[in-house]
Amino acid sequence: MSGVSASRAPVRAGILVTGTEVLTGIITDRNGPWLSERLLELGVDTAMIQIVGDRPEDLMGALRFMADAGMAVIVTSGGLGPTADDLTAEIVGEFAGRELVLDAALEEQIAEIIRPMMSRWPGLDPDAIRASNRKQAVVPVGATVLDPVGTAPGLVVPPASGSGPTVVVLPGPPRELHEMWEKAISTEAFRAAIAGAVDYRRGIMRLYGIPESEIANTLRAASEAGVPLDGLEITTCLRRGEIEVATRYEAPAESDYASFVEFLSERHREQLFSPDGATVDEQIASLLVRSGRTVAVAESCTGGLMSARLTERGGSSEFFLGGAVVYSNEAKVSLAGVDAGLIDRFGAVSEEVAEALASGAAERFGTDFGIGITGIAGPDGGSDEKPVGTVCFSVSSRDGARLTRRVLLPGSRSDIRDRSTTVAMHLLRRVLLADGVAAVSSEAGTGERG
Amino acid sequence: MSGVSASRAPVRAGILVTGTEVLTGIITDRNGPWLSERLLELGVDTAMIQIVGDRPEDLMGALRFMADAGMAVIVTSGGLGPTADDLTAEIVGEFAGRELVLDAALEEQIAEIIRPMMSRWPGLDPDAIRASNRKQAVVPVGATVLDPVGTAPGLVVPPASGSGPTVVVLPGPPRELHEMWEKAISTEAFRAAIAGAVDYRRGIMRLYGIPESEIANTLRAASEAGVPLDGLEITTCLRRGEIEVATRYEAPAESDYASFVEFLSERHREQLFSPDGATVDEQIASLLVRSGRTVAVAESCTGGLMSARLTERGGSSEFFLGGAVVYSNEAKVSLAGVDAGLIDRFGAVSEEVAEALASGAAERFGTDFGIGITGIAGPDGGSDEKPVGTVCFSVSSRDGARLTRRVLLPGSRSDIRDRSTTVAMHLLRRVLLADGVAAVSSEAGTGERG
Repeated sequence: MSGVSASRAPVRAGILVTGTEVLTGIITDRNGPWLSERLLELGVDTAMIQIVGDRPEDLMGALRFMADAGMAVIVTSGGLGPTADDLTAEIVGEFAGRELVLDAALEEQIAEIIRPMMSRWPGLDPDAIRASNRKQAVVPVGATVLDPVGTAPGLVVPPASGSGPTVVVLPGPPRELHEMWEKAISTEAFRAAIAGAVDYRRGIMRLYGIPESEIANTLRAASEAGVPLDGLEITTCLRRGEIEVATRYEAPAESDYASFVEFLSERHREQLFSPDGATVDEQIASLLVRSGRTVAVAESCTGGLMSARLTERGGSSEFFLGGAVVYSNEAKVSLAGVDAGLIDRFGAVSEEVAEALASGAAERFGTDFGIGITGIAGPDGGSDEKPVGTVCFSVSSRDGARLTRRVLLPGSRSDIRDRSTTVAMHLLRRVLLADGVAAVSSEAGTGERG
Repeated sequence: MSGVSASRAPVRAGILVTGTEVLTGIITDRNGPWLSERLLELGVDTAMIQIVGDRPEDLMGALRFMADAGMAVIVTSGGLGPTADDLTAEIVGEFAGRELVLDAALEEQIAEIIRPMMSRWPGLDPDAIRASNRKQAVVPVGATVLDPVGTAPGLVVPPASGSGPTVVVLPGPPRELHEMWEKAISTEAFRAAIAGAVDYRRGIMRLYGIPESEIANTLRAASEAGVPLDGLEITTCLRRGEIEVATRYEAPAESDYASFVEFLSERHREQLFSPDGATVDEQIASLLVRSGRTVAVAESCTGGLMSARLTERGGSSEFFLGGAVVYSNEAKVSLAGVDAGLIDRFGAVSEEVAEALASGAAERFGTDFGIGITGIAGPDGGSDEKPVGTVCFSVSSRDGARLTRRVLLPGSRSDIRDRSTTVAMHLLRRVLLADGVAAVSSEAGTGERG
């Protein structure tokens, strides 16, 4: 990573995720990374994410540790439920030096929310419900209460003493947390806590088809060529077979970043497929939608993941007509129209069969483009000639253009299946761009390059 | 969660994940949860997981915080690479009060590993490589060195003073970390650090088709019925539309756990599909493989995810022959043999079309069972009569058995697509069990119930 040169001390935040299920690995925390990205957008550096269980000592210990480490803001997720082990509001109150009191209006508001649920589950005990509501309505004096999205209210709690971090208390379920975050950041208490945050900009570039280590060389070359990198904080990361170059900078370094983008575009003309951060999925959807073209898939080792990836975003029915998951050889023949003789001659995993699958898919579904994938995802089924990880791809277009590749992918079965969809996406992108769809795209200024 | 009653103080561990990419949300940490589960298997409680960037103060601060909180073991992941911001070994050495020295044998070992890579990328600078190797070979005196899996060695570092946590230093890439973990836990230094860990057992049960809140009632009822729960630490969690009940207990509570399992089996006969923790995916694979039966899919709104889920595990080609992703109505007719009149009369999202898809899939691929899925995953395309989240399912068997359902699923497009595959898996499971495949299964003692 290149050097950071912030002009003043950054505003730092800590994220505290609570919950035994998260700690024991039963569920994977998604709130920490999500909050970290949101904070970054506000110019706040996340310095640490901590996950603790439901033990009050651990919760309090983590809050104090973050305060000692100089965090201006602490964001907590979870522990706001109605049961006895949901302790966050209480502990945060104590941490901030604020007494807890029952907020009667809030209690009534929670009761309102609960009422329809009670009629759906008539067996529930009304007294127990009342106690739960009341527990959730007990809040630190002087805290800003955030209206519940589910049943639990959130809190913004400044330190009673005036010095120390402001704590934003959010619920654990990601959907509730996301919605409440918007309310939290618009409160006066939160704004005051992050006053002085640097207004960072962020740029992302994506490359495909070079080793990650090559980026280090590129940075060195850029520096030698006089591209000013000092004001840019650059992080590179390998993600699903692509390289993501994320850069953060302050407003005055805007033109330095532009020079850096230009340098990368020159040096990696073929590999830099996204100078503006758009994903290959977004690019393909936009190329297809704008040109009114359609695509279909016939896939074997990816087992449906290629179709699933193309239909991940809403509106995909505009360009995706269908797919065939042709696991057995019979299915390759009957569903995708592969000549059985090809399979006998070259084997099911071969460039020839991948091409037949691509053409078969386009023909079968009546689309402009067809994608064929056949390979060995493992763990068994490999041979000396075709080891596990061998995957053949082909993308064909109605007017006869075609790209076919045989690659050897590393990793586990699931890595190979996932990575295969990335390879196919990039082949499709190249065929689309070569096929005149390019003109539409560059007109529209998505920054595509052929 | 019910009360814990460990007979002695548990051995507690902290996990320290380093890396700016993880902290900024660019990549999601999987090492923390994975290590937490492994530690639990060894009877060690993970009390906290902390994620920090590459700042040396934050790293050292986190280590000291964990030591103060009484951790017996700290496991770190990441920061072992050859570049200047990879600081873990150095900081851990300082933390443990141990001087750093160059291990010449280790340096030679790393050079050996690097040699083949150097020939592949001939442009690399030999001096820079030598400096990198040397950096990675500098280790704290008295630490146990764990042989590199990638290029970086791991470490087990006991405190020089004899008091304080032992630190296990592991590389960040999950594959390297997993392999090195096995080496780490067999070292004498690690064994000594976790001496006294309680030998916990762990049981998992899975339920489908009841709200999570119902489990709280069940626990209360169990307690009232005299089932001894005090020695059981029970965590419940909603996961992909199922409820997972995870219980940890010490050996003497074995029979208490058996009573708890029995109570749940009685009370939730229909819903408890897995008393032994097997997933519905494992059950289906095993039912199909053992009975020699086969399945095929015709899916619309899930866009390939159903086929992908059935082929996730190796060996699935034994029972999965293929799938059709029939996104357009034309594809439903031409690929899955749906009568176009049905679509006109009932709409593409209807029980009738789901049934036709199931039968069509089985016929087309020549399988014993067929699965049909059609629905509205959103965000657009809903109506008053069929809002977003409406999904129709059907599973049919060759001899005429059939289960069909229409459900309304909550959440985002991706939630609806994922949850749909769970609904379909459970329908398939019920059809398999009703279809005489049951006999094979219960003979083999997988604990299935019809």
